[in-house]
Amino acid sequence: MSAHPLEELLHPRSIAVVGASGNPESSGHQFTDALVQHGFRGPIYPVNPKYTEILGFKAYARVIDIPGPVDYVISNVPAPQVPAMLEDCGQKGVKVVHLFTARFSETGRQAAIELEREVLRLAKKNNIRLIGPNCMGLYYPKEGIAFSDSMSKNAGPVGLISQSGQMVGEITRMAAQRGVYFSKAISYGNALDLNECDFLEYLAQDVDTSVILMYVEGLRDGRRFVELLRQTTPHKPVVILKGGRGQAGARATASHTASLAGSAQMWRTALAQVGAVSAVSPEELVDLAVSFRFLPPIEGLRVGVAGGAGGASVIAADACEEAGLDVVPLSEEFRAELKRKGVSIWDWIGNPADMSITENRDFTTGDMVEMMASCNDFDLLILLVGEPWRRRPEMTAAEHLKQFKLEARRSKPILTVVAERDPNVESEEDWSWDIMREVRKQLLEDGIPFYRNIGRAARAARKLVGYYQKRASLATAASR
Amino acid sequence: MSAHPLEELLHPRSIAVVGASGNPESSGHQFTDALVQHGFRGPIYPVNPKYTEILGFKAYARVIDIPGPVDYVISNVPAPQVPAMLEDCGQKGVKVVHLFTARFSETGRQAAIELEREVLRLAKKNNIRLIGPNCMGLYYPKEGIAFSDSMSKNAGPVGLISQSGQMVGEITRMAAQRGVYFSKAISYGNALDLNECDFLEYLAQDVDTSVILMYVEGLRDGRRFVELLRQTTPHKPVVILKGGRGQAGARATASHTASLAGSAQMWRTALAQVGAVSAVSPEELVDLAVSFRFLPPIEGLRVGVAGGAGGASVIAADACEEAGLDVVPLSEEFRAELKRKGVSIWDWIGNPADMSITENRDFTTGDMVEMMASCNDFDLLILLVGEPWRRRPEMTAAEHLKQFKLEARRSKPILTVVAERDPNVESEEDWSWDIMREVRKQLLEDGIPFYRNIGRAARAARKLVGYYQKRASLATAASR
Repeated sequence: MSAHPLEELLHPRSIAVVGASGNPESSGHQFTDALVQHGFRGPIYPVNPKYTEILGFKAYARVIDIPGPVDYVISNVPAPQVPAMLEDCGQKGVKVVHLFTARFSETGRQAAIELEREVLRLAKKNNIRLIGPNCMGLYYPKEGIAFSDSMSKNAGPVGLISQSGQMVGEITRMAAQRGVYFSKAISYGNALDLNECDFLEYLAQDVDTSVILMYVEGLRDGRRFVELLRQTTPHKPVVILKGGRGQAGARATASHTASLAGSAQMWRTALAQVGAVSAVSPEELVDLAVSFRFLPPIEGLRVGVAGGAGGASVIAADACEEAGLDVVPLSEEFRAELKRKGVSIWDWIGNPADMSITENRDFTTGDMVEMMASCNDFDLLILLVGEPWRRRPEMTAAEHLKQFKLEARRSKPILTVVAERDPNVESEEDWSWDIMREVRKQLLEDGIPFYRNIGRAARAARKLVGYYQKRASLATAASR
Repeated sequence: MSAHPLEELLHPRSIAVVGASGNPESSGHQFTDALVQHGFRGPIYPVNPKYTEILGFKAYARVIDIPGPVDYVISNVPAPQVPAMLEDCGQKGVKVVHLFTARFSETGRQAAIELEREVLRLAKKNNIRLIGPNCMGLYYPKEGIAFSDSMSKNAGPVGLISQSGQMVGEITRMAAQRGVYFSKAISYGNALDLNECDFLEYLAQDVDTSVILMYVEGLRDGRRFVELLRQTTPHKPVVILKGGRGQAGARATASHTASLAGSAQMWRTALAQVGAVSAVSPEELVDLAVSFRFLPPIEGLRVGVAGGAGGASVIAADACEEAGLDVVPLSEEFRAELKRKGVSIWDWIGNPADMSITENRDFTTGDMVEMMASCNDFDLLILLVGEPWRRRPEMTAAEHLKQFKLEARRSKPILTVVAERDPNVESEEDWSWDIMREVRKQLLEDGIPFYRNIGRAARAARKLVGYYQKRASLATAASR
């Protein structure tokens, strides 16, 4: 199989930042600095006639003044200067121009719309592919390409295609805090040349990407998009957050990326038909990324819940059931085994298993996790971690987690809920915060995803199961 | 108006902890210690024949051995010992016994159910009121009564009535992290004697309580409960989280507090009719507590959103509209004023106002907040704070917030979104965490609520407006 054309375009040997600047608050400075901070290995060429040097690199007046070959250009110049720059880039043999430059069709102004058309014409004439305009471009941690120094330097198996650069920042940051890292993330703004379909086709065949996330406001080529999804979803989950679902949202997409939003209902139907998974918020998109990244395929809805105390067990039952999971009662055989083990509450305890009712320490939450994991009545488990460190602050994160016997994940997928906590506004000292961080790190090291609350864990699980239940039929449909 | 009978019962001059213990892991130790930590001013009497002293207090073998009067007893003894203890309490003139003691009807076992009946009989015979059994009892920060040393020592205007003690801990902790403190919180478990109606009636007339939260699994007296809600909601908002909404939840409430759950549909209808506000999760209950605590009455749905960049503005539009808020377009007059002020994007910018498109600093998010606040087109504003400290780490929290001109809250209610962030699992050093804490503290000092994401802010605002829109008609209905 020959490489996808984007494979070469997104692996530049050198990058020029046109409109680079010595002013740390300018985008031209930030793009240059981010390449340095992330360790881009090729030459970096700042271009700005007002400077001789920027961030320690020699600066050039024009792209054509650069001595070596230039594969990739990041443009920070104002929109009216883009045509001349594109002619320079053509002369220099540049392959891709990422236009951070904005104020084209998204302004709704006639002159800007015409200028955008001219930009596309010049790009084609000069054999240049465009990313954007009006976007943050590429985040490719393995290659040292990023657009903010605060982005994670870790790489992982999740790919992201987003019409909004702000969403790339938000999603990759939230994901990194949950242990999910990216193969590449592409922000493509107005999609004047390269569009959602090109990037989807690319990530679909990218061996470094096993889960695809998308934030889409409008489509440049709806028919091709649907067909690509149909071909992709049997092999890789595609999770899509649609921006601009209502009237106000549609107005917002028009002024953001000049996108025609399309009705929410039409989207939902089309995405469901081709097996894409819909997210309704950036937070849910990240929950789903976490789920697909860490959990194996799960094809059944029967959930066992353990670890909650009192009301938390009741809330867990409601949340799971309302998400569409099947909170199966403990079977007679399960109770018989509890009785055989001498568990005094064998007739009383249920699913969710409220472990606060155990009389003593001879049957723990960990024991319940172990029993549920080896029982065929359950397809997945959710463990409510709670805050055991409040009762036993002297124990380490590893010691707390050991009690839950999470090695049971080898026989059954386990999701954990590590409670929603904010930084303490009453006091700067909050030791429980540190141990929560440690607990989360340990969970991630063991490949176990965590969620903020039971509702989010349950809804993510439901959508993941829905995808895997459908996958076999998707493959059949796609091959027809 | 004479004081409610519970007023005296919940203001004990002295407390005895029966089944107190020197073992720090026992409940008897924790209840005693929490009273000490929270500074309960009256005498504390540990009762346990195995000790002569506990936590520095002289211990007594039986309640009748205590020299001074005892108003309130916290029982940690096993269920079979409760009858004898109640006879002692009767002899001693104890007014209230809080039965932390569990394993009664919630076990589903016949002997335990009969024992519970006997407990009620003995309490009535001895003229003792019961809280519980199977609950954590009272949290009353102003009086120094709490059941965990990790509960906030601050008092505030929110009251909580909860069938689950775990929920009291969870809700009060999440609320304190959002600047919401409690007048009193009461966990009442199986509601054998005092029940949801008694506590609701009490908080309804309590001058220290202006917002009432409830977590309810089942009702002891449904008819009285509905009538009390009808009388209360015209004066104080009552927010109710119903536990046990589905089949699995109903099984869980039976084994948790022996409650008959009732159908979710019936609950929703009944609560809506009497003007109570429904929450679907503990997180939403806290969002609503935050909203009612900090926001004034709002009777219109027209929202102005400012501060989002790019995709965040689109997501905000969708989230507000889907929550039922009215994201009104900017009016011709509003645009004319922008133009008069020399704002170059007067024709392009919208609502939500994506402030990333401004060309320079002469028109800021703060300016937009100010203009929206003084415009009659909006009933409330939502400010997306974002993370301005990433671009300007040298500025303090106060300096960042000053730029948003939040003094505009004097003319219009403002909700803020301070993004969902987790502790950084990649590194222990996360300066942005500290400044986020500072920003949140400052917001609370200014009486401005914050939310984790736009969806939660919008849904809370919608429910708050729904309550205030209905309130006038509720008062009329209640007086009929």
